[in-house]
Amino acid sequence: MEDRILLAHGSGGTLTHELIRDVFARQFTNPFLDAMGDAAIVGELPQGRLAFTTDSYVVQPLFFPGGDIGKLAVCGTVNDLAVAGARPLYLTAGFIIEEGLPLKTLEQIVVSMAEMARIAGVAVVAGDTKVVNRGAADGVFINTAGVGVVPPGVDLSPAHLHEGDVLLINGTIGDHGLAVMLQREEMGFNATLESDVAPLHGLIAALLEVAPGQVRCMRDATRGGLATLLNEWVSPSPALQQGGSGKKTGLEIEENAIPVRDEVRAACEFLGLDPLYAANEGKVVAAVAAEVADIALSTWRAHPLGRQAAIIGHVTGEHAGRVVLRTAYGARRLIPMLMGAQLPRIC
Amino acid sequence: MEDRILLAHGSGGTLTHELIRDVFARQFTNPFLDAMGDAAIVGELPQGRLAFTTDSYVVQPLFFPGGDIGKLAVCGTVNDLAVAGARPLYLTAGFIIEEGLPLKTLEQIVVSMAEMARIAGVAVVAGDTKVVNRGAADGVFINTAGVGVVPPGVDLSPAHLHEGDVLLINGTIGDHGLAVMLQREEMGFNATLESDVAPLHGLIAALLEVAPGQVRCMRDATRGGLATLLNEWVSPSPALQQGGSGKKTGLEIEENAIPVRDEVRAACEFLGLDPLYAANEGKVVAAVAAEVADIALSTWRAHPLGRQAAIIGHVTGEHAGRVVLRTAYGARRLIPMLMGAQLPRIC
Repeated sequence: MEDRILLAHGSGGTLTHELIRDVFARQFTNPFLDAMGDAAIVGELPQGRLAFTTDSYVVQPLFFPGGDIGKLAVCGTVNDLAVAGARPLYLTAGFIIEEGLPLKTLEQIVVSMAEMARIAGVAVVAGDTKVVNRGAADGVFINTAGVGVVPPGVDLSPAHLHEGDVLLINGTIGDHGLAVMLQREEMGFNATLESDVAPLHGLIAALLEVAPGQVRCMRDATRGGLATLLNEWVSPSPALQQGGSGKKTGLEIEENAIPVRDEVRAACEFLGLDPLYAANEGKVVAAVAAEVADIALSTWRAHPLGRQAAIIGHVTGEHAGRVVLRTAYGARRLIPMLMGAQLPRIC
Repeated sequence: MEDRILLAHGSGGTLTHELIRDVFARQFTNPFLDAMGDAAIVGELPQGRLAFTTDSYVVQPLFFPGGDIGKLAVCGTVNDLAVAGARPLYLTAGFIIEEGLPLKTLEQIVVSMAEMARIAGVAVVAGDTKVVNRGAADGVFINTAGVGVVPPGVDLSPAHLHEGDVLLINGTIGDHGLAVMLQREEMGFNATLESDVAPLHGLIAALLEVAPGQVRCMRDATRGGLATLLNEWVSPSPALQQGGSGKKTGLEIEENAIPVRDEVRAACEFLGLDPLYAANEGKVVAAVAAEVADIALSTWRAHPLGRQAAIIGHVTGEHAGRVVLRTAYGARRLIPMLMGAQLPRIC
């Protein structure tokens, strides 16, 4: 086999088939994919409502401390299903590859995806490969789409937020964003930071099990960071409004309560960034009824991906549509959604 | 709003939300998308087996006679579901945009996608937008994934091919490939060719209705053309083998029977190409039992997308695993899968 990706690997002809056989099918193997139809026929689904999502991944560099674009592409889509209350089941994977990419690089990424898929308990059942000429893309971009099933009785939505609900996060913020930033050559800064990229389905399922009907909504804090996620929940923008609750709410978070690694805080200060806006790939915020706050917190702390879980704030009837931070000094500061861009191609 | 895409449109922050509200949500609007969750919750599906597929689109140029990348992105995925026997239901759309793309260009593409989705009866329920720096992509790449449901009783697979089955195509080959090639500036050749890009779900549903249980398999002839599709059905490659039939079969097609437009034939001769390998985006081949060949043909000819439908060959017990062409002069020629690449970025 060639040692670099050629345009002909995207032709649909013999080289495409060899690439599928030797790389994709070998790593992702499962009966649905192996049937090699135009669409994978995965059979009847378990009872529940279908959840369907997609994300493209353009992170640069492709490999960074704690992960790579492949790990990101599986975990990101698994997490988008899980925070919607769904059990993740099947993924598709679409690759847009720049001519000249070393085949070993692609293989390494696919191995990483396959490993994460096994851990997350999902099967990659369909895929697509396109190759573009040198300079028309940057290494490789990956799209994953995912389907899952929301079991009967689970219904998560920001429309269910109530005054007094508690906001819970499963650990430190900013690890992914800073790890990727520092990996880029242009940053003259050294630290031993790792991305937090991880599949959160298990952590989330554990919470839904101990607090049935008491989890209002969840969202993973990716691009735009914790600040943007929280604003999305109470945003006054019509396109983003969830409706249904009737009564509008605001959010209040405590600066002192939000877990941030010392290295992330130091790097943020050095780079002039706010960790509230830094990207994460393994952090989820849950809004839960106050009466289950303790059991929710202890459940997450008992999980390997939630050891540093914390209650970081609450839902309030005041300042509807806004997110307010109580600073370490007791002052209150409005936290808007991310404006501009912190750093492109963080995921 | 800005008149060009900025990096901040991919940040996940305010500009991303404005782009979603003003372009994507406005055009694609439906209750599942408008809920703006991490995953779209589309509810319980009709009875049947779930079909799931994906394709990325990198066609260059973005606009060509008869279509554009948006039309391609919806039709391609709708067709991949339809040829698997599924009723297409929901799509996701992932955009990777190069910084600097005129917003009007993106809007035009999204309008085209929304129009095709309406025609195909599918809803775009989830999406994603990434922006990469200038020079790291080429205009815009689009990924669509799709889900559909295969009704009980429908079971299509090349494993069901039987000696004597008839091969049917819904019209002329090579229109898309040649239309896109000639649109590229480097080709000094003029012709009035249009891409055949179209959603084939209706044409396919009509066939399944008149010949229940008698359609063996279908596939749309895209990259790699008719020749590659037919080879995929009888390929000896283990990764592509469908298994199950026990007896291996070959295919025989008649050069005289395959519909090719005069302009496509002329352009192919001029460019030194074989129409059998040229890309299509609105052509499907069906293998049907011989006893339904007439009703299948007349059903397709009565459909707007099948007026030039033709019986082009049959399944044979001879030359197992191979595709053979009977030429206009009565000679027989082996037709392998596409080797190399005819032209990159054709879809």
